[in-house]
Amino acid sequence: MIKTDILIIGAGPTGLFTVFEAGLLKLRCHLIDALPIAGGQCSEIYPKKPIYDIPGFPEVLAGKLTDNLLEQGKQFEPGFTLGERAETIDKQEDGSFIVTTNKGTKHQAPIVAIAGGLGSFEPRKPLIENIAFYEDKGVEYFIKDPEVYRDKKVVISGGGDSALDWAIFLADVASEVTLVHRRNEFRGALDSVDTVQELKLLGKINLVTPAEVIKLHGDSKVEAVSVLKDGQEERIETDHFIPLFGLSPKLGPIGNWGLDIEKNAIKVDTFDYQTNIPGVFAIGDVNTYPGKLKLILCGFHEATLMCQSAYKILNPGKKYVMKYTTVSGINGFDGSRKESPKAVVKAIV
Amino acid sequence: MIKTDILIIGAGPTGLFTVFEAGLLKLRCHLIDALPIAGGQCSEIYPKKPIYDIPGFPEVLAGKLTDNLLEQGKQFEPGFTLGERAETIDKQEDGSFIVTTNKGTKHQAPIVAIAGGLGSFEPRKPLIENIAFYEDKGVEYFIKDPEVYRDKKVVISGGGDSALDWAIFLADVASEVTLVHRRNEFRGALDSVDTVQELKLLGKINLVTPAEVIKLHGDSKVEAVSVLKDGQEERIETDHFIPLFGLSPKLGPIGNWGLDIEKNAIKVDTFDYQTNIPGVFAIGDVNTYPGKLKLILCGFHEATLMCQSAYKILNPGKKYVMKYTTVSGINGFDGSRKESPKAVVKAIV
Ligand SMILES: Cc1cc2nc3c(=O)[nH]c(=O)nc-3n(C[C@H](O)[C@H](O)[C@H](O)COP(=O)(O)OP(=O)(O)OC[C@H]3O[C@@H](n4cnc5c(N)ncnc54)[C@H](O)[C@@H]3O)c2cc1C
Ligand SMILES: Cc1cc2nc3c(=O)[nH]c(=O)nc-3n(C[C@H](O)[C@H](O)[C@H](O)COP(=O)(O)OP(=O)(O)OC[C@H]3O[C@@H](n4cnc5c(N)ncnc54)[C@H](O)[C@@H]3O)c2cc1C
Repeated sequence: MIKTDILIIGAGPTGLFTVFEAGLLKLRCHLIDALPIAGGQCSEIYPKKPIYDIPGFPEVLAGKLTDNLLEQGKQFEPGFTLGERAETIDKQEDGSFIVTTNKGTKHQAPIVAIAGGLGSFEPRKPLIENIAFYEDKGVEYFIKDPEVYRDKKVVISGGGDSALDWAIFLADVASEVTLVHRRNEFRGALDSVDTVQELKLLGKINLVTPAEVIKLHGDSKVEAVSVLKDGQEERIETDHFIPLFGLSPKLGPIGNWGLDIEKNAIKVDTFDYQTNIPGVFAIGDVNTYPGKLKLILCGFHEATLMCQSAYKILNPGKKYVMKYTTVSGINGFDGSRKESPKAVVKAIV
Repeated sequence: MIKTDILIIGAGPTGLFTVFEAGLLKLRCHLIDALPIAGGQCSEIYPKKPIYDIPGFPEVLAGKLTDNLLEQGKQFEPGFTLGERAETIDKQEDGSFIVTTNKGTKHQAPIVAIAGGLGSFEPRKPLIENIAFYEDKGVEYFIKDPEVYRDKKVVISGGGDSALDWAIFLADVASEVTLVHRRNEFRGALDSVDTVQELKLLGKINLVTPAEVIKLHGDSKVEAVSVLKDGQEERIETDHFIPLFGLSPKLGPIGNWGLDIEKNAIKVDTFDYQTNIPGVFAIGDVNTYPGKLKLILCGFHEATLMCQSAYKILNPGKKYVMKYTTVSGINGFDGSRKESPKAVVKAIV
C-alpha cells in the first residue's frame, strides 16, 4: 500500500504543479497516470510545440514546460505510479480513500486530487483479431522503456510523429526495425520525416507502405505479423508489434465514482475546487464551474487554492499564514534549501 | 483623451498579463500606474529577488518576470500612462468610463480593470518644512529619467537598495553625487554596499553619515540643502534633492469610487472578477473573494477569466470559441505572427 497526503490522479501540468504547492505546505504527494511519462496532454499530444500563453513565457515548448514543472517540484519528492489507470476509489472508516489501479496497485490518502484532464489516455487499437491476447506479450501501445527492444526485432505501425520518432530512436537500439503505414505519406515534423527517409535509404529502417498489419502469430507471445500490401500477404518475423495510432483520452472509471458530472467534467465550487465528495478535489481540465476555461494557467490557480483546503483538512484547527516564497525560501523534503540572498547591513567608512 | 478597449489601472504582473489575454481576444489595453516603470511590487519592492512559485519557473527574478511579461504582451501594443495616479472615474451616458489622473490625463474605455495591487505606490516623504513647495522643482521621490541629472549636482538621501543603486548609477551621470544617511550602516545587496564603498574612496560619491537633510533652500527651485551632522548644520549646494525612503502602497482614490470594499480590497465574484459596478473589474492583489490568495499566479488566472467577460460586453451577441495559442498562433496588432511549425505530409520513397 502506497501512502501519501495528497493522492493526485493525473500527472499533467496541473497535477505536477500541485506537488509544488502542496510541498510549500509540507504535504506529500503521489501521482498516478495511465501514461508512462509525466506531462499529460503536453507530453502525449504536443511535446515539441510552442505554447504562447503560459504567463511569463513569451514562448515555451510543451515538453520543456513539463520538464520545468518536474524540476520545480523535485525537492518535494513526489511518488509516481505510471502506466496504470486509477480504477476504483473506496472510502475508509478513518475518512481516507483507497484508490486501486487496473494493475492492482493500491494507494491510500486522506485527500484525493483528480487532475485527470480530458481523461486517462487510452491507445487507439488496430482492429486485429486476437490482439488482446498478445498485449504485454509482444504487443505494446506505448513505449515505456526502450531498452526492452535492445537487439530485438520490432514492427511499428502508424504514420504520425510517434511512429516516426520511435522508428528513428529504435533504429539504433533494435536489431531490426520495420515501419508499416497504410499510406506512402507520413504526417509529422519535417525533420522526422526526412530522418526516416535517410534511415530507409541506409537500410536501417525497413519501410513497408502502403500496407497494414492484419494478423499476429505466435503461441505464447508475438513471433511474427502478417502484412497486407498490394493485395498480397507477407509474413514478417518479429519479437514486438508496436501500433502507434495515437492515444485518446477517456474520462473512464472516474465517471463511476459517484461524482457530479456535467459534460464529461466534474462539477466543483470555486472556493477550493472540492467535488460533491468531501476530501475529493478536481482541478485542471477535468473540472467545470461557471466561467471555466480549459487552460493550463487556470489549472495552476486551482491547484494552489485547493492545497490551502487540503492543508486545513489535514491540520484541523491549525492556523496557516501564507508566506511568500521570495521571503521565506523553500525547504525541500530532500533537505535542500532555496532562498534569496540576504541583504547585508554594513557600514561604509 | 486616450481611448482604449480595456483601461487597466496598475501595471503590476496582473495588469501586464491582462494585455496579453485581451490581445488574444483582439481587445486593446492602456495601463495607468503611479510608478514610473511597469512591474508593480515586483519592480518597486524586490526586482532582484528570486520568486520560486511562478508555475514553470523553478526560480525567476521578479525583475526578469516583469521583463518577460512586457515581452509577452508587446505585440498587442499596450499604451502606458506612467508616473500618474488614477484619481477619479466617471460613468458616461454611453456606458463608458472616463478615468482622470492626478496630472489631469483623461482616459476613456468601456471596460475598466483595476489591477491596483495593494494600492498606488506613494513615496515616504521626509519631514522637512516646505518640501511640498519644491516637489518637481528639484525634489524628486523617484527617478524617471536619469538623463535629467546629467552634469547636475544631486543629493540623495536614504540607506537602502534604491539609495545605494541610484547613487552608484548617478555617479557616472551627475557632476556631483552626495549620499546622506542617518546611520553609518547601509542595508542592501552586498555588492551594492561594496560598490558605494569603492566609489566613496575614489571620491566619486560624497558620503555624509550619520546625518540628515533638515532644510531646503532656493527661491523658485532647489539650490542647496542643509545637513545636520554631529549637531552641526552644513550647507550643500545642489540642483536636486532625491529622498529615497521607499514607497508604500495606498489604496487611495480607488477607495472612493463607490466599490464594495472589504479590508482594503475590492469585493468581486469569482465568475469573472467583476465588481459591484458593471463593466468595472478588479483582479490581482486588489480584489477579495472567499479563498483569495494574494499571489501572482492567481492574478494571471483572474485576468484571463475577466477578459472573456470583457469580450462579451464589447461584442454583444457574438459567440466566442476559445482557441489554443499552440493551435492558432498569435496575430499581433503590430502585424507580427507567431505560430508553431506546421506538420508536413510527405511521402517517404
Ligand atoms: C494540441 C493542443 C494544444 C493546446 N494548446 C494550449 C495552449 O496553447 N495553452 C493552454 O493553456 N492549453 C493548451 N492546451 C490544453 C492543455 O494542454 C490542457 O489544458 C492541460 O494539459 C490540462 O492539464 P491537466 O493537468 O489538467 O490535464 P492533462 O494534461 O489532460 O493530464 C491529465 C492526465 O491524467 C491522466 N488520467 C486521467 N484519468 C486517469 C485515470 N483514471 N488514471 C490514471 N491517469 C489518468 C491522463 O492520462 C493524463 O496524463 C492544448 C491542448 C492540445 C491538445
Ligand atoms: C517582498 C515581497 C515578496 C513577494 N513574493 C512573492 C512570491 O514569492 N510569490 C508571489 O506569487 N507573490 C509574491 N509577492 C506578492 C506579489 O508581488 C503580488 O501578488 C503581485 O505583485 C500582485 O500583482 P498585482 O499586479 O495585482 O499588483 P501590484 O504588483 O501591487 O501592482 C499594482 C500597481 O498598481 C498601481 N496602482 C494602484 N492604484 C493606482 C492608482 N490609483 N493609480 C495608478 N496606479 C495605481 C501601483 O502603483 C502598482 O504599481 C511578494 C510581495 C512582496 C512585497
